[in-house]
Amino acid sequence: MVQSKYLTGDSAAINGFLDKFDVFLFDCDGKRVVFVTNNSTKSRQDYQKKLTGMGIPSEVEEIFASAYSSAIYISRILNLPKPQNKVFVLGESGIEQELRTENVPFIGGTDPSLRRDITPADFDGLADGSMLDPDVGIVLAGLDFHINYLKLATAYQYLRRGAVFLATNLDSTLPMSRTFFPGAGSISIPLVNMIGQKPTALGKPSQAMMDAIEGKFRLDRARTCMVGDRLDTDIQFGIEGGLGGTLAVLTGVSKKEHWEAEDAAFVPAYYVDKLGDLRGGSS
Amino acid sequence: MVQSKYLTGDSAAINGFLDKFDVFLFDCDGKRVVFVTNNSTKSRQDYQKKLTGMGIPSEVEEIFASAYSSAIYISRILNLPKPQNKVFVLGESGIEQELRTENVPFIGGTDPSLRRDITPADFDGLADGSMLDPDVGIVLAGLDFHINYLKLATAYQYLRRGAVFLATNLDSTLPMSRTFFPGAGSISIPLVNMIGQKPTALGKPSQAMMDAIEGKFRLDRARTCMVGDRLDTDIQFGIEGGLGGTLAVLTGVSKKEHWEAEDAAFVPAYYVDKLGDLRGGSS
Repeated sequence: MVQSKYLTGDSAAINGFLDKFDVFLFDCDGKRVVFVTNNSTKSRQDYQKKLTGMGIPSEVEEIFASAYSSAIYISRILNLPKPQNKVFVLGESGIEQELRTENVPFIGGTDPSLRRDITPADFDGLADGSMLDPDVGIVLAGLDFHINYLKLATAYQYLRRGAVFLATNLDSTLPMSRTFFPGAGSISIPLVNMIGQKPTALGKPSQAMMDAIEGKFRLDRARTCMVGDRLDTDIQFGIEGGLGGTLAVLTGVSKKEHWEAEDAAFVPAYYVDKLGDLRGGSS
Repeated sequence: MVQSKYLTGDSAAINGFLDKFDVFLFDCDGKRVVFVTNNSTKSRQDYQKKLTGMGIPSEVEEIFASAYSSAIYISRILNLPKPQNKVFVLGESGIEQELRTENVPFIGGTDPSLRRDITPADFDGLADGSMLDPDVGIVLAGLDFHINYLKLATAYQYLRRGAVFLATNLDSTLPMSRTFFPGAGSISIPLVNMIGQKPTALGKPSQAMMDAIEGKFRLDRARTCMVGDRLDTDIQFGIEGGLGGTLAVLTGVSKKEHWEAEDAAFVPAYYVDKLGDLRGGSS
């Protein structure tokens, strides 16, 4: 069985850990840091403001969010011929901002005309296609706090007509207010269930995101450590990406019991109670 | 391989088919008929009006809809002790009407106060439980044309606190306007994905519905035929229920190719192009 090394309070072990890596994908002191987040409701600019508000100095270029990752994938990798590169967005302004930065045309998203009940005319207009934009070649599903039946029905019709199905990330839940709320995966899963096909996901633990991060930051995977609090996104992301290390922080969803279970799929190499515990290592 | 008998235009075969059964669970001429529907947005009263409007004479007592089936299950089988038998409803007025008939207390449903955007106060109130009704012991998910983030988040919190998870039915899509729209399964699937547990489903093909129908109508399964247009609800329902026969009508979702495929899970015993074709048999 793989064992996790407990670092809290063990200065020698912490120093050993810090010496071993040049890049920390999430977190801390002095070495190169990339902030990786699956939250698609915020753009990198939004996220940088949030980090500053939390007293964490950061640059926009150090932030890799799933909305950005999705925009990059659409514009640079998928690269559909115009005008069929238009995106129908299920999500908030973070996605829209990143698509705009990459000059990707889109509809849906925060459009107030979609924030209403479905009507009999909508059923007909969606069925005969008169309400659909023929240029839409992609459906991108992220976390949408304004999800409704009309948006789901519209996205479904685009998918039935052959649109490429993408998701910023597939997290079923969103940690918030010390509990959980529906995550981005709750927006895409009805569509998955209807069309019988999964989307290409651009957030953790999808390796599409790791490839994009590696390409952008030219990092050495062997000297890179993924730091996070979810086994099934953060730690899985680091292990499947072949990183030199993974560090679990016990302040989130995952508990020590989870990876010590017989059938644990992903075991972090290191763990601490909270991120601040690593400060002890530099003394 | 099981073969389906094609009845259209074959009077002798149609007469043979009609002679073989006393009860037709969906449809036709003279013999006992029970109308079985998974559409939970309508009560039996609503449905009877709809059938009358279509020129199909029927009685409320001949209709077995998933909203009714769910209300019966909650009041007579689940039978939770008061006051913990209160239901949080995701769905339309059909469910509410049937719950009222069975004297089952409920909240949610068509309540206009839930038809709005989620607010920061909602996140806090759902997290600390102050917005939750401590009497809710059941979450019932049906087709809700007014689904939104607030309702999903509320249902999820009740399930996290141990509420029993029920669904009127799990159809991923709803046939409408000659295409498909999100079905009741699209309302429950985000919750299934979040809590990692499936609901007890009370519609076709759940055998809970068959048992309830058998109990109510005291039918002889061997002389009962299920008639319907969906292999994965109607025909499956009849086969798994051990009925004497199943008849596929090719006017709906399922096509002949579907059950003639090597890996077809459910093959109807008989099929016709349209229901009216059976009239030829009585001549």
